[in-house]
Amino acid sequence: MSTPSSVADAGEHALIALIRERVPAAPSWLHLGIGDDAAVIEPARNRLDVVSTDALVEGVHFERDLMAPADVGYRALAVNLSDLAAMGATPRAALLSLALPANLPLVEFEQLVDGLLAGARTFGVALAGGNITRSPGPLVIDLTVLGSVRRRRVLTRSGARPGDQIWVSGLIGAAAAGLQALKGGSRPSGLDACIRAFLRPEPRLRLGQLLGRNRAASACVDLSDGLADGLRQLAAASGVGVVIEAEALPIPPEAGTLVHAGGTLVDRALCGGDDYELLFTVPARRRARFEAVRRLVHGLRVTRIGSITSGGSLVLRDQESERPIPAGYAHFR
Amino acid sequence: MSTPSSVADAGEHALIALIRERVPAAPSWLHLGIGDDAAVIEPARNRLDVVSTDALVEGVHFERDLMAPADVGYRALAVNLSDLAAMGATPRAALLSLALPANLPLVEFEQLVDGLLAGARTFGVALAGGNITRSPGPLVIDLTVLGSVRRRRVLTRSGARPGDQIWVSGLIGAAAAGLQALKGGSRPSGLDACIRAFLRPEPRLRLGQLLGRNRAASACVDLSDGLADGLRQLAAASGVGVVIEAEALPIPPEAGTLVHAGGTLVDRALCGGDDYELLFTVPARRRARFEAVRRLVHGLRVTRIGSITSGGSLVLRDQESERPIPAGYAHFR
Repeated sequence: MSTPSSVADAGEHALIALIRERVPAAPSWLHLGIGDDAAVIEPARNRLDVVSTDALVEGVHFERDLMAPADVGYRALAVNLSDLAAMGATPRAALLSLALPANLPLVEFEQLVDGLLAGARTFGVALAGGNITRSPGPLVIDLTVLGSVRRRRVLTRSGARPGDQIWVSGLIGAAAAGLQALKGGSRPSGLDACIRAFLRPEPRLRLGQLLGRNRAASACVDLSDGLADGLRQLAAASGVGVVIEAEALPIPPEAGTLVHAGGTLVDRALCGGDDYELLFTVPARRRARFEAVRRLVHGLRVTRIGSITSGGSLVLRDQESERPIPAGYAHFR
Repeated sequence: MSTPSSVADAGEHALIALIRERVPAAPSWLHLGIGDDAAVIEPARNRLDVVSTDALVEGVHFERDLMAPADVGYRALAVNLSDLAAMGATPRAALLSLALPANLPLVEFEQLVDGLLAGARTFGVALAGGNITRSPGPLVIDLTVLGSVRRRRVLTRSGARPGDQIWVSGLIGAAAAGLQALKGGSRPSGLDACIRAFLRPEPRLRLGQLLGRNRAASACVDLSDGLADGLRQLAAASGVGVVIEAEALPIPPEAGTLVHAGGTLVDRALCGGDDYELLFTVPARRRARFEAVRRLVHGLRVTRIGSITSGGSLVLRDQESERPIPAGYAHFR
């Protein structure tokens, strides 16, 4: 018999064994990890559990010919951790549910797991369990992440009030520009940072934790589906409106070099997904606390892009005019 | 514009709204449920968290033309809760991650959610969050369930010791016979109970909790992938062997009426998956505790099927002979 070359040749138990042998020693609070019917976790003392789940689907969220398997694995973890960041939570554990095409090369499976575990090391997450099954269609990676947060230090979407400043971390539209460059196949060197923003998004865990611990923000959401969608979600949950200054948006200049891209640069930046940045609001009376947080995350750019308004309208303003913020990215269209 | 008829017509936000309006009021320990970046849960006091994830993939675990959407939704929850049952845990919350074909009729989506929420009511589970995306292939339902268990009352796979009795709940091979009847399209009335066992498996939560709380079992596993696989998992984790009495297996007599089924009845019962029963071991010194548990679950059949042995062999014995237990169900073959 030749060496197994696909996940089907290896079989489910061998795939689980391959993961187990790569997972480092469990932290003391993980009483039971991979290998039983469920994971058993000691809750963090005097903390609340924070839990989120998100899937990456081949053909929707990634293409295997555009991304290395290690990037897919890393990214699956990063986008889930971004949800914990938006709550101000500290990540602890992850569960991995995989649906794999039978012909997926075993080496690609191993690279995917290695990419995920590299992210787990970076962000201090223990892979605590999961499940592997066959997919008759696309590769699907579903991850569930568990974290913890102190009571009354949770960031939510619903606390924004009229007059609060609207801030965003990082660059907007970088990941979308990176994806477009990858799709174009040209990989212009000026877009390296954008391509990296797409392939290896960095969940803003420290910023979220500091905003929550210091009570510096009134509301927070992550930008998985783009800035326009994030603004809409935050405004709806808080029962407020927003006015955004188009010229303040931290759009990377390299994004403007792309050809074949429809819409204005601002529209593309607003509607492009995959920026795993934090969008948050800062009340005037919390401004000093926020400046303290800024000093602690000095390597990370944060930009004020607008203000919360009363009423429910979502307005984009530049020097000449005002118009509604576009509808944003839609998964089903 | 006509009434939305597919999930793509409705869009992700409308689908989430449809779920939210169906979810009952949150229990007090669920600080934040559906609608933020993550769920926020107060851990159960003096308990450990128990977490498991499992996916149902169309074309692998179910066919939409054989099962009503409500059965698919119910089943996704039930099979996950079966993992909590095997740990002796009490379920609390679930997260639902859906990948939906764009042309899935909206009414089928609603029925699927209703089936899942009916199960959630029955088993006392709060739907706390999740995620919806498009699938370019099969419908994928990934569920994560969270429960709690008292320290030192956790059931694991690894505690079986030579001399322990091996017990199983319910009937073995019923669900496989039910699936075969559904596939045949004939639905013979004698197989109603088997069909129900396949469509609406009942997680053995109370049995698992009682076995754990009373320390009546030394090891436990659920039979999602069949009895042969469950025995293999339990024996491997405990470093022991098993001898199973073929004639003791609680195979429903109706399973024998099926035509076109390969292998002997015993082989089919051992290898057929989808029996969400508990397989557990009882040490001689715990026999009195176990009899107390049996009295408390008197509506549920439990059957002694063999014994734990030293060494690692897995033996099936009848009056005439002994032979190895077959390899069991394999997801990738």
